[in-house]
Amino acid sequence: MRISALFAAAAVLVLAAPAVAQDLAAGAAQARDRALADPTAWAIAESLTTEVGPRMTGSPAMELGRDWAVAKFRELGFTNVRVESFTTPAWFRGPESAEVVGPVPQKLHILGLGNSASTPKGGLTAEIALFTSWQAFLDQPEGSLKGKIAVVTQRMPKNQDGSGYGFVNAQRTLGPREAAKRGAVGYLVRSLSTDDTRLPHTGNAQAAGIPAAALSTPDAELLERLVARGKPVRVKLDMQSTSNPKAKAYNIVGEIRGTERPDEVIVIGGHLDSWDPGTGAVDDAAGIAITTAAAKLVGAMGAPKRTLRVVMWGSEEQGGSSGAYLAANRAEVPKMVVAGESDSGAGRVFAVALPAGSRAHPAMKAFEAALVPLNVVVSREPPRFGGADIAGITSAGAPFVDFSQDMSRYFDLHHAADDTLDKIDPAELSQNVAVWASFLYTVANSDIDFRAFPKEAK
Amino acid sequence: MRISALFAAAAVLVLAAPAVAQDLAAGAAQARDRALADPTAWAIAESLTTEVGPRMTGSPAMELGRDWAVAKFRELGFTNVRVESFTTPAWFRGPESAEVVGPVPQKLHILGLGNSASTPKGGLTAEIALFTSWQAFLDQPEGSLKGKIAVVTQRMPKNQDGSGYGFVNAQRTLGPREAAKRGAVGYLVRSLSTDDTRLPHTGNAQAAGIPAAALSTPDAELLERLVARGKPVRVKLDMQSTSNPKAKAYNIVGEIRGTERPDEVIVIGGHLDSWDPGTGAVDDAAGIAITTAAAKLVGAMGAPKRTLRVVMWGSEEQGGSSGAYLAANRAEVPKMVVAGESDSGAGRVFAVALPAGSRAHPAMKAFEAALVPLNVVVSREPPRFGGADIAGITSAGAPFVDFSQDMSRYFDLHHAADDTLDKIDPAELSQNVAVWASFLYTVANSDIDFRAFPKEAK
Repeated sequence: MRISALFAAAAVLVLAAPAVAQDLAAGAAQARDRALADPTAWAIAESLTTEVGPRMTGSPAMELGRDWAVAKFRELGFTNVRVESFTTPAWFRGPESAEVVGPVPQKLHILGLGNSASTPKGGLTAEIALFTSWQAFLDQPEGSLKGKIAVVTQRMPKNQDGSGYGFVNAQRTLGPREAAKRGAVGYLVRSLSTDDTRLPHTGNAQAAGIPAAALSTPDAELLERLVARGKPVRVKLDMQSTSNPKAKAYNIVGEIRGTERPDEVIVIGGHLDSWDPGTGAVDDAAGIAITTAAAKLVGAMGAPKRTLRVVMWGSEEQGGSSGAYLAANRAEVPKMVVAGESDSGAGRVFAVALPAGSRAHPAMKAFEAALVPLNVVVSREPPRFGGADIAGITSAGAPFVDFSQDMSRYFDLHHAADDTLDKIDPAELSQNVAVWASFLYTVANSDIDFRAFPKEAK
Repeated sequence: MRISALFAAAAVLVLAAPAVAQDLAAGAAQARDRALADPTAWAIAESLTTEVGPRMTGSPAMELGRDWAVAKFRELGFTNVRVESFTTPAWFRGPESAEVVGPVPQKLHILGLGNSASTPKGGLTAEIALFTSWQAFLDQPEGSLKGKIAVVTQRMPKNQDGSGYGFVNAQRTLGPREAAKRGAVGYLVRSLSTDDTRLPHTGNAQAAGIPAAALSTPDAELLERLVARGKPVRVKLDMQSTSNPKAKAYNIVGEIRGTERPDEVIVIGGHLDSWDPGTGAVDDAAGIAITTAAAKLVGAMGAPKRTLRVVMWGSEEQGGSSGAYLAANRAEVPKMVVAGESDSGAGRVFAVALPAGSRAHPAMKAFEAALVPLNVVVSREPPRFGGADIAGITSAGAPFVDFSQDMSRYFDLHHAADDTLDKIDPAELSQNVAVWASFLYTVANSDIDFRAFPKEAK
């Protein structure tokens, strides 16, 4: 076993370090190795996707999800299990269809975007104005797309670090509004997808008062080919949806209380809500599973000195849980040791970004040593963004980490019907748990203060 | 260019052969090299999938397809273009949905199978009886599944030669009838798919008087996990369909007439009809494109001695075109030189099977020499099955060939919404055209008689 051999080598190096550091290094390594053999994360993801399924904010399934979360925390031995309720706007998909009606009838595979308006009953039919580049679309003057359905088909790059999503994200989130500004009566965007399946990928967009949907990639390419023939292409959209400006939502919390300094809290988690077409497996049953399993495992190694808190945030996709979490916990932010979020799927971690200046601290040295057999490196840069659900508390001053996962396949699945359990590799999931468990062990059992380091140091 | 270098080497070897063989070898090589640079096949597949789309037997789209075929043959310079009409039973999909209603509500992604019955209006709800093996299902006694929806989830193996399909095909084609025998009120089968997308794969089944559908692979696995929990799993099916016992269908024919022996006919083609969820790209716009482009190319090299006939068969998926073609052309079978069908997608050819004993004939030696740079070998076995649409004429005595394509990805796409143009690799498509063009050249410009060889010889 290559991993064991490398671990042995790391253990030898640690022998020269002081006693506390030795304990941390041994504990981090033990947490890692236990995690690699622990089926808990897989069982959590399996349970959530099978017994609850998709979980839209404000839906009956989310009520079921909330109850699942409370029961799962209790079953795994977490304490102080509680539900922090809030309200947030929520959008709900209704019946949707789209088709080319001329020059030749062809069905289109679409998914409405969050905040899409409904079409008139019976649908709307209009000629399309298609742009293969986002910039070419933005270059159109106001009013120039009057009566048209605007279509943007720029492709999404596939990158290991998932950065392609950032490049094209505006096409979905801002596209409907930009289309409406230019007079369009509807908006279709090529799915933000790196796969070639005929399944569209949904996601949120700013409300724009017009119907807006994602096309599957083959359908976007079909429209490009039809337009290339030079004749007007007419599309019929029929989309019905509803919304609730004050939907009930929930952040669900479970803790493993610290023995020495219980008021010093490490906040980690993933988001419980999901889009509706899949079963929210990689987005984000995986993150729920990884962080919950890691905290449970560290707790099982002996009560930690500081408190480990796992939060299952309740409205990441349509927004709300980050602000609600900050509002409910603002007074506690100064005592939050560090925050971290797992919301990049189930691919293996390849790098961790630690708060500036912390790398040389014995706790982080112990963590770094434990990472070597996992083929994970410590990034030379500090984290820039820890995750959407911790954005509230980190903007209020909570230190944070960011663990980079291999997202090569993530955007094949993200927000699509393909986001199902079978896409999670149990070994890669365990590797994530190993990284988080090692990290939690060293932070919860040391006195590291991430606020104490000079910002410029590396 | 590796191909050119190898061709040069092959050309040198041919110099030692008699003059006719030399001409055949040079012609076969020339046909191959022209094909590799010829965009005609891609243009045909692009046109059919874009301008016609899916083409179910008996549908309005098939009328459009028929007109497309006639126009395309004429545009490409084929003569004797004609439509051979016939009638055949056809099934038409209506609205379909399926969901788990207990123990937890979850949507299921299904596609009804050809010849499926409709459910009662408003649907039917029943407990499922799930079998992870086809044999375990068959082992159930008659009447034992009374009132249940039978579910079979055995997986399909992925093989380069596509042979996995044969192993599991009965689950789809015979499953509904076997379920009805045992008293089931419905039948669900894991899609005959080698992919993990949430798109189900349809296909024909024997009529059984009960509703029958294919589940996407993630949905089949979801049902397995729910059943594993030990509580009854109830599913609601709502499927409406119609059928026409005498739907109009068409085999469309185009020819390049031979100059010396025009009554000696080489019959090749693919099928024009397709299932409805995709746009019938790999199944079988590819076959139409490959054979049409190959015949056109050989015709463009100078009129061949024998007649090249391309048939776009009009009802392969639901059956009928093979028998209709035989009935309309029976008298001519004794003069058919050879028949071949391209209906295995657009993956590259890796082997060709030639009629027993023919390999040593100068025409086939010329063909084999042309194949070397394409990395195609001549099979040691004669062809066992040439294709569903030529089964009529081959059973009546027409010699036939079988070209084996790499089908590794074919059953990811087959009969699913994913069967779209973007799945065809233009270079692999051209490699197919090169194989067919080389073959057609040697047969059409020689006197080879595939009936003349002793059956036992290799």
